[in-house]
Amino acid sequence: MTGRTAHTFAPPVVEAYSWLEGKDFSQRALINVSQAAPLAPPPAPLRAHMAKVIEEEDTHLYGAVLGLPALREELARHSSALYRGKITAAQVAITSGCNQAFSAAIATLCRDDDEIILPTPFYFNHKMWLDMSGVRCCSLPCHGDMIPDPAEAAQLITARTKAIVLVTPNNPCGVEYPAEVIQAFYDLAKSRGLALIIDETYRDFHAQPGPPHHLFEQDDWQDTLIQLYSFSKAYRLTGHRVGAVTACKTRLAEIEKFLDTVTICPSQLGQKAALWGLQNLGDWLAQERHEILARRQAIIDRFPTLAAKGWRLLGLGAYFAYLEHPFDVDATDLAQKLVEEAAVLALPGSMFVPAGDHNGRSHMRIAFANISAEMIVVLFDRMAQVSQ
Amino acid sequence: MTGRTAHTFAPPVVEAYSWLEGKDFSQRALINVSQAAPLAPPPAPLRAHMAKVIEEEDTHLYGAVLGLPALREELARHSSALYRGKITAAQVAITSGCNQAFSAAIATLCRDDDEIILPTPFYFNHKMWLDMSGVRCCSLPCHGDMIPDPAEAAQLITARTKAIVLVTPNNPCGVEYPAEVIQAFYDLAKSRGLALIIDETYRDFHAQPGPPHHLFEQDDWQDTLIQLYSFSKAYRLTGHRVGAVTACKTRLAEIEKFLDTVTICPSQLGQKAALWGLQNLGDWLAQERHEILARRQAIIDRFPTLAAKGWRLLGLGAYFAYLEHPFDVDATDLAQKLVEEAAVLALPGSMFVPAGDHNGRSHMRIAFANISAEMIVVLFDRMAQVSQ
Repeated sequence: MTGRTAHTFAPPVVEAYSWLEGKDFSQRALINVSQAAPLAPPPAPLRAHMAKVIEEEDTHLYGAVLGLPALREELARHSSALYRGKITAAQVAITSGCNQAFSAAIATLCRDDDEIILPTPFYFNHKMWLDMSGVRCCSLPCHGDMIPDPAEAAQLITARTKAIVLVTPNNPCGVEYPAEVIQAFYDLAKSRGLALIIDETYRDFHAQPGPPHHLFEQDDWQDTLIQLYSFSKAYRLTGHRVGAVTACKTRLAEIEKFLDTVTICPSQLGQKAALWGLQNLGDWLAQERHEILARRQAIIDRFPTLAAKGWRLLGLGAYFAYLEHPFDVDATDLAQKLVEEAAVLALPGSMFVPAGDHNGRSHMRIAFANISAEMIVVLFDRMAQVSQ
Repeated sequence: MTGRTAHTFAPPVVEAYSWLEGKDFSQRALINVSQAAPLAPPPAPLRAHMAKVIEEEDTHLYGAVLGLPALREELARHSSALYRGKITAAQVAITSGCNQAFSAAIATLCRDDDEIILPTPFYFNHKMWLDMSGVRCCSLPCHGDMIPDPAEAAQLITARTKAIVLVTPNNPCGVEYPAEVIQAFYDLAKSRGLALIIDETYRDFHAQPGPPHHLFEQDDWQDTLIQLYSFSKAYRLTGHRVGAVTACKTRLAEIEKFLDTVTICPSQLGQKAALWGLQNLGDWLAQERHEILARRQAIIDRFPTLAAKGWRLLGLGAYFAYLEHPFDVDATDLAQKLVEEAAVLALPGSMFVPAGDHNGRSHMRIAFANISAEMIVVLFDRMAQVSQ
C-alpha cells in the first residue's frame, strides 16, 4: 500500500482488543477501562423520541451538508449562554462525530508539510489524521502536571505552523486546562496569526461549573478559534455519530466541501436526538456529570492503594485518570500483563506519544467513566497485586 | 484559507439551490430533477423495524470501525450470489455512505501528485475529493455514447497512475457500461498494476437482470478490484449514511485507519436497517426497480417532444438522462433560464467536467427517478417551450 494511510499506524484500540483474544474471563470478569464511551443507551424518554422521529419522512432523507438548521440554531444558543459569548447558527456546523470535526478543520488549514502544534500525550486519532494529511506534528510535551506550556509552544512556531490543538478536559490525561492557560494559548495563536483548535468533547463533565474558558467572550473569537464538540458523551449517542464545529462562516464554507465528499450529511436521526437532548436533558445531564464526578472522587479516595505500590496520579478529570507506573517494563508490556494477571484492560501511554518517545513508556490511561465507585476499589486492588 | 479544501470547488448542488432563491413557484410548482435521491421514506415494515431496534442497547453504542459484522456477512453472501463470485465478510467493509467508501479507497491508494484516471463527465464529489487529496485527475473524455474507451485510458497511464475509476450505471450520464467494456478496463488495470475502482451505487436499477459484470468471477479479483456500493438508493436510507466497499483484506486494514479518524464507525441504526433490507426487501426492491425502468421508458417515449426542438438524448439509465441542448448559451446559463422560464431545476453539464472544459457547456443532466411518467410529460413540455 502506497497511499496516505500508509503514513500512519493502525487504530490502537483495535490492537488493545487483540490482547483479549484467547483469554478466559469466566472466573474473573474483565474490567475494561480502555475506552472513553458510555456503555448504556440514551435515557428512555430520548429513545421514545427517537422511535417517534422514525415516522418523520425527513429523518430518512439527505439533509443539509452543514447539519440540521434547528440543531445549529439550538447549539449556537446553548453555547452563547454557556460561554457568555455571541455565537450564531451560521458559525456552527454539525459533523458525523467529533473526529470528523477535527479532520475537516485540519483539511481547511493545512497542506502537505504544514505544521500543527500538538500537546503530547495526544489523542491518537488526531495524530493519525495529521499523519494521513501529510501534516507535520510538532510535539509539545506536557511535564509534571500534564498541562502544556504556552511559552514552550511559542518556541515551536515556524513559518509553516498553521494551528495549535488543545483538548480540554484532556484525553488521555484527564486534566482540565485552567482558563488562564487556555487564554494564553489563544493570545499566542492570535498574535502569530494561527488558528487555535480546542476540542471540548468532555466539557459536560468538567469539575468546575460555569464556562471552562472565556474565549467566546472576545469580540473577534472567530478570527482565531475553532471549537469542536461531541454529543456522543453527553446524551450517549456514540452509535449515531453527531459532533459539531464552531468557527467563522468562511471556514465553515470550506468545511462544507470536506463534509460533502466524506459523508454528504450527518445522520438525521442522530441530529434530531441531539436536538431533543439539548432541549430536554439538561437536568439529566447534570445528574450524569454528578455521577462522573463521584467516580473521579473515588479515584482520589482509593488512590493510596496504588500509591503504596509506587504508582503516581498525573492527571484526573473528565473520563480519565493518567498514571505513572512503578514497573521496570514498557507500558505496552505492562498493559498485557494487566490483562493476564489482573483481568484489566487499559491503554498504555505509548499509544499516546510519537513512536520512539520514551515518555509514554511509564504511563497508563484509565478510562474510569464506565465503572462504579465500588468497581474502582476492585480495579485498584487488582492492579496493586500485579507482580513486579 | 490555505488548506487542502482550497484546492477544490464548493458543492455544486448548493450553488444550484441558490438559483431558486427569491423565485415564486406558487403558480407553477417547481419540477426538481437536480438530485439523485429518493424523496420518500423507507417502506413501513422497515420503519417499524427501525423503531424496534431503537430499543436495542448496541444501536446507541460505538460499533466496529469496519462495520456491523452481521451486515458484512450478509452483503458478502448477497454479492457472492449476485456476481457469481467468492466474496468473504473479511473483504467487505461498511462506510458512512458511498462517498466515504470512495474517499477511503483513494486515501489508501494515493499521495500528493499521484494520478487517477477519471472518465468525464464525472461525479463531482469524486473530483472534489481528488482535488483535496492533492491527486491529479486525468480526464478520460467520453464521446458519442458516453462510454469511456479502455484504449484511450491506456494512453493516459503514467508512472504515477494508481487507479482507474468507473461509475456504472453512470452518474451523471445514466449509461450502463457493457460487461465487456468493464472487463477491458479491469484487464487493463490488472496488466498495468493499477487498481480498478468501480462505483455501483445505482446497480439495483440496472435495466439488465443478472450480474452487470463478471469481475468477481476472477479468482484474483481482490488484487485489482475495489467495488463501492450504497444502501441509500435501494432502501431509501439516504439520511442514515450507509455504503460499502469490497476489496482485499489488506486494503480494508488501511481503510480502517481512514474510517477510524473520519467517523469512528457508521451509524448503527442505519446498518441494522440495511441488514434488514438485504434480508427482507428483495421483492420490494424488484418493484422499485420496475418503477424506475418504467420512468426510463417514459423518457424514451416522450423524448420526441424535445428532439423536435433540437435536443439529443446522450445517455439514459439508473436515475439519469443526459441531454445535449440546442441553445446557443452555456449550460449553466440555460439551467438558470430553465428555473425562470420553465420552473425546472436540473444540473448543467459544466458541473460534471473540469473547469474550462467546453464539453459540459452543451449538456444537461435530468435526475428523473423522483418524477412519475406523467410528470415526465409535463417536464418535457415545459422544457420544449423555453425560448432560444
